[in-house]
Amino acid sequence: MKKIKVSLIQHSCSDDIKENTEKAFSMIEEAGKNGAHIICTQELFKTPYFCQIEDWKYFNLAEKIDEKNETIKNLSTLAKDYQTVIIASLFEKRAKGLYHNTVVVLNIDGSLSGLYRKMHIPDDPHFYEKFYFTPGDLGYKVFKTKYANIGTLICWDQWFPEAARLTAMKGADIIFYPTAIGWLPEEKEEYGASQYNAWESVQKGHAVANGCYIAAVNRVGFEPSPDGNSGIEFWGQSFIANPSGELIVKGSQDKEQIITAEIDLSIIEENRIVWPFFRDRRPDTYHDLTKRWLDI
Amino acid sequence: MKKIKVSLIQHSCSDDIKENTEKAFSMIEEAGKNGAHIICTQELFKTPYFCQIEDWKYFNLAEKIDEKNETIKNLSTLAKDYQTVIIASLFEKRAKGLYHNTVVVLNIDGSLSGLYRKMHIPDDPHFYEKFYFTPGDLGYKVFKTKYANIGTLICWDQWFPEAARLTAMKGADIIFYPTAIGWLPEEKEEYGASQYNAWESVQKGHAVANGCYIAAVNRVGFEPSPDGNSGIEFWGQSFIANPSGELIVKGSQDKEQIITAEIDLSIIEENRIVWPFFRDRRPDTYHDLTKRWLDI
Repeated sequence: MKKIKVSLIQHSCSDDIKENTEKAFSMIEEAGKNGAHIICTQELFKTPYFCQIEDWKYFNLAEKIDEKNETIKNLSTLAKDYQTVIIASLFEKRAKGLYHNTVVVLNIDGSLSGLYRKMHIPDDPHFYEKFYFTPGDLGYKVFKTKYANIGTLICWDQWFPEAARLTAMKGADIIFYPTAIGWLPEEKEEYGASQYNAWESVQKGHAVANGCYIAAVNRVGFEPSPDGNSGIEFWGQSFIANPSGELIVKGSQDKEQIITAEIDLSIIEENRIVWPFFRDRRPDTYHDLTKRWLDI
Repeated sequence: MKKIKVSLIQHSCSDDIKENTEKAFSMIEEAGKNGAHIICTQELFKTPYFCQIEDWKYFNLAEKIDEKNETIKNLSTLAKDYQTVIIASLFEKRAKGLYHNTVVVLNIDGSLSGLYRKMHIPDDPHFYEKFYFTPGDLGYKVFKTKYANIGTLICWDQWFPEAARLTAMKGADIIFYPTAIGWLPEEKEEYGASQYNAWESVQKGHAVANGCYIAAVNRVGFEPSPDGNSGIEFWGQSFIANPSGELIVKGSQDKEQIITAEIDLSIIEENRIVWPFFRDRRPDTYHDLTKRWLDI
């Protein structure tokens, strides 16, 4: 057995960036004190989910990811203090006019292990991300840490089996998905349950197909749209699924929570020996996956 | 709305090939009389699941798939009589010493629409398929029929997101998986529930990720291993999942059944407009899926 403790930081966000950030830091600190080996934030944990409308002013929320970045310095200190790996989701300003939805991974010595930039960018009512985020160009990433090989994907990526597979093929033991997903109040009654179930199902599918753990970290709370037109009720329910696709822990739908589970990494290999999908893949027949669609 | 009726033929098999075949034909006939537009058999519906041991004698069960094949002639008559599309799973003898696990699709005019040969071949205790079946070389297939575009995959294929994706990318409205999966009695108590759940989860995941229907058709009954060493309790529970990954119908775990559902094909497009995964795939970043593994 190789057991490690993983904590997911699920909270609400207001317009007060400082307050959001301090809340997340204090939850990370609590998880660290509680012995978490790996801690992951929700998507864009410092800010409200500003993509509900397209407004240039929100580009001011983006930050350079470098050694002068205060957030990263603070996360680095937390990582070192608690000997924990931290996965955090930030709005990255890469260059003037070039922005990404980015995850940073901090090692237990406080060093920046690297970045992942969201590859699949949504654009739907209240989720206008194509306006803000340039699609990632770093490829799919796995970070080797003391405790586990960590795969990082972000929110909309979670609907794409290709992303999970490529991350697993780089050796991910756990794939983390910082997320911001919720219900539009006008849709919730009719479609809410099926929307949630689809989200859970597709990720359980990734866990099974790839024989690894999946951890989704979602925010909670209602955030009104800045234009006064409806808003999003984030559905929380951050979870960890094991390689059989079973949820071993699941957070509240509407409460701030540190969701923690002890997970046994040794079952990944046991599982894959019994279910040898990587042995039986047919990569010689997958070339057409690099196409958009197959017209027949 | 574009509603069609789909029937899945779930039954047990004995060593008596004639009896199995007649049982399946009579169930197909009943489904046809009941107005099914598309009918699908379980995997290798004519025979017991002979892959529990490796024995050369079982190659005698294979049959040439041509205009003289009696099974296909009979299926063709049924298809024409009931104006139904039939998907049937057969042990194909392609040439001397070359065998496949193959699906045939019969059109409503009785013509053979084409074949699909199982691409992913398992090999595990009691499932020694690599001994019998050469991996398919026809690629992923979709058959345009009067009622729907039918994708065909077979059993072990169901664990591979690549196969479902490529079939969906050819326009499948419904992906059918004739299947033979069950519990080894010595494992059932400890692992049975999680094995079944993984099977259901990964296929619900395909339905969500691809915004199409998934139909899995499994056999029932206990088949002892011919070497006297244990056997397989086939777990039935043939199901149809909708594009949100919800099971709209599910068969018994141990009874022979015609599992029928009326499905609305129009929700495929509605669903994909709301969940535009095909719009947002990143085929420019998927090339490494054509590799076995990514060593980092």
